[in-house]
Amino acid sequence: MNEHSTTLLAAEDTPRPGDSYVQSFARGLAVLRSFGAQAPQQTLSEVAERAQLTRAGARRILLTLLQLGYVEADGRLFRLTPKVLDLGYAYLSSLPIWTQAQPLLEELMQALRQSCSATVLDGDDIVYVVRLSAHRTMSINLGIGSRLPSYCTSMGRVLLSNLAPDALRARLSNMALLKVTPATKVDIEALMEEIAQVRRQGWCLVQEELEQGLVALAAPVFDRSGKIVAAINVSGQAAGPSVAQLMEQSLPKLLETASRVSALIKVQQ
Amino acid sequence: MNEHSTTLLAAEDTPRPGDSYVQSFARGLAVLRSFGAQAPQQTLSEVAERAQLTRAGARRILLTLLQLGYVEADGRLFRLTPKVLDLGYAYLSSLPIWTQAQPLLEELMQALRQSCSATVLDGDDIVYVVRLSAHRTMSINLGIGSRLPSYCTSMGRVLLSNLAPDALRARLSNMALLKVTPATKVDIEALMEEIAQVRRQGWCLVQEELEQGLVALAAPVFDRSGKIVAAINVSGQAAGPSVAQLMEQSLPKLLETASRVSALIKVQQ
Repeated sequence: MNEHSTTLLAAEDTPRPGDSYVQSFARGLAVLRSFGAQAPQQTLSEVAERAQLTRAGARRILLTLLQLGYVEADGRLFRLTPKVLDLGYAYLSSLPIWTQAQPLLEELMQALRQSCSATVLDGDDIVYVVRLSAHRTMSINLGIGSRLPSYCTSMGRVLLSNLAPDALRARLSNMALLKVTPATKVDIEALMEEIAQVRRQGWCLVQEELEQGLVALAAPVFDRSGKIVAAINVSGQAAGPSVAQLMEQSLPKLLETASRVSALIKVQQ
Repeated sequence: MNEHSTTLLAAEDTPRPGDSYVQSFARGLAVLRSFGAQAPQQTLSEVAERAQLTRAGARRILLTLLQLGYVEADGRLFRLTPKVLDLGYAYLSSLPIWTQAQPLLEELMQALRQSCSATVLDGDDIVYVVRLSAHRTMSINLGIGSRLPSYCTSMGRVLLSNLAPDALRARLSNMALLKVTPATKVDIEALMEEIAQVRRQGWCLVQEELEQGLVALAAPVFDRSGKIVAAINVSGQAAGPSVAQLMEQSLPKLLETASRVSALIKVQQ
């Protein structure tokens, strides 16, 4: 939080986490977020349970969302309406770069016949802003807005390489570093070294640390000030192209696309 | 609104539009939506103006959003964070069909070398849930969550063809039917007839009614009960393939993809 917002926050009518205003808004968003792949339609009781609210509280919020058109009811079941997309769209359209960068990533996908994505860092996670799957490369479904941990993904390590070593160490120390496959690096010193190398070489290869059988190669996207603002990657089956082929065929095209996207961003700033 | 939600709404603690609870939530969402392509970063005064709030009200909401991590401040400027995507993602992941249907649309795009999209109906608008651009076919940038009017788009007419004639006439009567190009049909009887034909033939061709030079061909996606739940389309330059070519080459592949997406939906229900 910078100086200006601190000043703003110091004023006497500053909302605090316990404020009814902050709470009611946070609860409303929690109800929206309680819907998802595991719960596309929910009863009032299910919403209350998943959003950790009382039945009365959940009911009040659901009715508010009904009135505002973000939720629709079908018998006892509630579900989200497409109006919810307006909110995510507000973010994506505030970064028009991604609709312009998508054709470049589509070219890359078609040239390499590998899945291509772009992500930004949010806290400890990478968040997908573009996701193009050449075929089913992963066991999980990923779409725009989906999240993965940064420490064990190629794009995550590229994004983390933007941090100064002290800030990086502090960030890694606060993460839940889980061994999601036998290959996942979870030792802080090993990750520090790995990410320092990513910073030096300007790309990152991750082999089967997120999912067995999956390899991914990522490169940074820079803004005009030289800050890494996003990462793009290509990914494929470990059983597919060899790592040597990936480095020889995919890396030059990936780096070229990353620099074209960086150029687009520099023009817009 | 159905019987159950009416019962819920009849209870004494039902929120009403004037309620502080409903209002505060609606204002919070209005602030999120005040950001976008035209306003990626805003000062407090700009947010207040765009969201039609007092400066004090806008300030309170911005600070709430800062605390919840949906907004970040940089000097006097506020901007959205990727966390906002979680909200849109809640909707998209509640319909996992779209992450599964996307590879089918990518195949279609690669086979036809034309832009492919999927939309759902929300009120009078179509809302994009998948958008793949083969190249820059349109002067506007469209991404997931973006909206276009239903009456003058190929997918819109497919989605409207799901309505019974009386409901369709009522819906069209309440729309702002604007002549966005010289070719746009804005007469209700002409639109009724056009959409009845779409219903009979199972696809819709729209030529330069949304944008000069743009032609699009759409087909319906059905759920198990035979209801149209989405539309997919291919679009290209009017100066590109002739309409005869479009009908001969693109239509069969479009209809095949639509039926494969319908089959996916039927399995999931």
